[in-house]
Amino acid sequence: MTRTVIESKSKTVVIGFDEPFCVIGERINPTGRKKLAAELEAGDFSTVEKDALEQVACGAMVLDVNAGVVYNSNPNPNETEPPLMRSMIELVQGLVDVPLCIDSSVPGALEAGLEAAEGRPLLNSVTGEEERLERVLPLVKKYNVPVVAISNDDTGISEDPDVRFAVAQKIVQRAADFGIPAHDIVVDPLVMPVGAMASAGQQVFALVRRLRDELGVNTTCGASNISFGLPHRHGINAAFLPMAIGAGMTSAIMNPIRPVEMEAVRAANFLMNHDPNGSAWIAFSRVLDAVAEGMPFAEASKAAAEAGGGRGGRRRRRG
Amino acid sequence: MTRTVIESKSKTVVIGFDEPFCVIGERINPTGRKKLAAELEAGDFSTVEKDALEQVACGAMVLDVNAGVVYNSNPNPNETEPPLMRSMIELVQGLVDVPLCIDSSVPGALEAGLEAAEGRPLLNSVTGEEERLERVLPLVKKYNVPVVAISNDDTGISEDPDVRFAVAQKIVQRAADFGIPAHDIVVDPLVMPVGAMASAGQQVFALVRRLRDELGVNTTCGASNISFGLPHRHGINAAFLPMAIGAGMTSAIMNPIRPVEMEAVRAANFLMNHDPNGSAWIAFSRVLDAVAEGMPFAEASKAAAEAGGGRGGRRRRRG
Repeated sequence: MTRTVIESKSKTVVIGFDEPFCVIGERINPTGRKKLAAELEAGDFSTVEKDALEQVACGAMVLDVNAGVVYNSNPNPNETEPPLMRSMIELVQGLVDVPLCIDSSVPGALEAGLEAAEGRPLLNSVTGEEERLERVLPLVKKYNVPVVAISNDDTGISEDPDVRFAVAQKIVQRAADFGIPAHDIVVDPLVMPVGAMASAGQQVFALVRRLRDELGVNTTCGASNISFGLPHRHGINAAFLPMAIGAGMTSAIMNPIRPVEMEAVRAANFLMNHDPNGSAWIAFSRVLDAVAEGMPFAEASKAAAEAGGGRGGRRRRRG
Repeated sequence: MTRTVIESKSKTVVIGFDEPFCVIGERINPTGRKKLAAELEAGDFSTVEKDALEQVACGAMVLDVNAGVVYNSNPNPNETEPPLMRSMIELVQGLVDVPLCIDSSVPGALEAGLEAAEGRPLLNSVTGEEERLERVLPLVKKYNVPVVAISNDDTGISEDPDVRFAVAQKIVQRAADFGIPAHDIVVDPLVMPVGAMASAGQQVFALVRRLRDELGVNTTCGASNISFGLPHRHGINAAFLPMAIGAGMTSAIMNPIRPVEMEAVRAANFLMNHDPNGSAWIAFSRVLDAVAEGMPFAEASKAAAEAGGGRGGRRRRRG
């Protein structure tokens, strides 16, 4: 069975066909968050701290860390992003014990993150673009980490799922040339907004099945892309996640602080027989009870984890 | 493509691989509803009327009608159920224009329903039990109607999905001997409670794929069985339905008057590319807005359908 092992200093998370769905918290990312971007440029990490604690409380098993700020004072991310990534990784791993996902399109920032991260982080990402392959795969090999492989290449993002599959296949082959095994490649088949492309959902479900059956790889995606621009997006997301999980998707980079999506993931884990005796579901139902009574989701989750002691924390992380 | 055509006097609903998921409203059923059972024995049909109107308002495309009351005054359902079925069918089809699903384990009640129903109702059900096959398939042939085929036989309900598949296959073959085509068989693979059988979800998803790929039949199920006995069952149902739809399930007998499950079905339709331009989703999002503001779901649905005029009604019925 394909198992992608990610580690912090003290915790191991396995992405795998027989594992609960791996929720990778997406919040620590200044893209499209002007306030956070301004804070980071000013050296203020208070939102990062809040996002780290809150996402883990709500059930994120891995935290994505993206330092992609374009500074007003210096527009060259090759200079500004590596030291910021290092600071953010150090801060986050000092606060929470989950493994991290180092997210950048700047190779220097990926390497700075790899140097700073304890354990075995997930690298995010390589693509099928030649330059990226040549820059990122040596880092993956050198640091012996798993990597997210996004299915676009020098021709861009194809609307043809067969082309996206072929790009993923090429990345897996190129990684093999570097001695990187397929179980350390987590393919992102690219989720298009269903409001813009009617076949977007079906494409992802079919691609995930093929990637699993033919390449034997784990998969991930930016789940909320599916509902971009639509009303009641959380309803679309909450159906998309179980459908993707049913098709074989094994992780997603998503927002864990909304109970609707987390409820969908936890129910899907139960229905995939990845929640023995439904114990994680039953524990989560107490969180939902507290949310229904008006308690914020993060607070309710934290209270439930503390009431459950060590086992509760473990269930939350793994399930 | 497999298309199961169901008709009322004035409306056609198609269950099919390329159609929106067919929601069959389950409410008109005295099983486990003591108040309704007592009303029916007393000749009071007010709850049936309310359930018929409310379910159609909320988006049911077909209504199941079950007259399975055991009268205190006469414990023989072979005597009491056929005339009650006839009365209920006549009442319901006088109130709403959707096709009906005639639901009984009493062959005389099935035939009384078939005589009373206008159009082409769905018969519910035959099983793999020899006596049922011999009694029900001739009715299916005589009245030229589609039938729900439940995957149990004289040995009971098997926990082995291969056995349940074989039972479905046997029913399809026996129907063929009567000249009944596979597209008029809607197989219910039987949904077990996931709280009692951890593999219940995966069994259904795998069975639905096989039934579709190998037998080419449409499928249905009693969807809420999956969450029997569990806390926050609507959360389980709302993940189960999209997963089943993603696996290829084309209809369910379910409660349409809860917005959570209907939201999951409508989102899944969109993600399966069965909601062109997302117009049904966008219309439904207005219903959700009204529900969020405190309006009851049935009322909000009705108001939205009326605001949308004829097209709104049509979208609601088909999508």
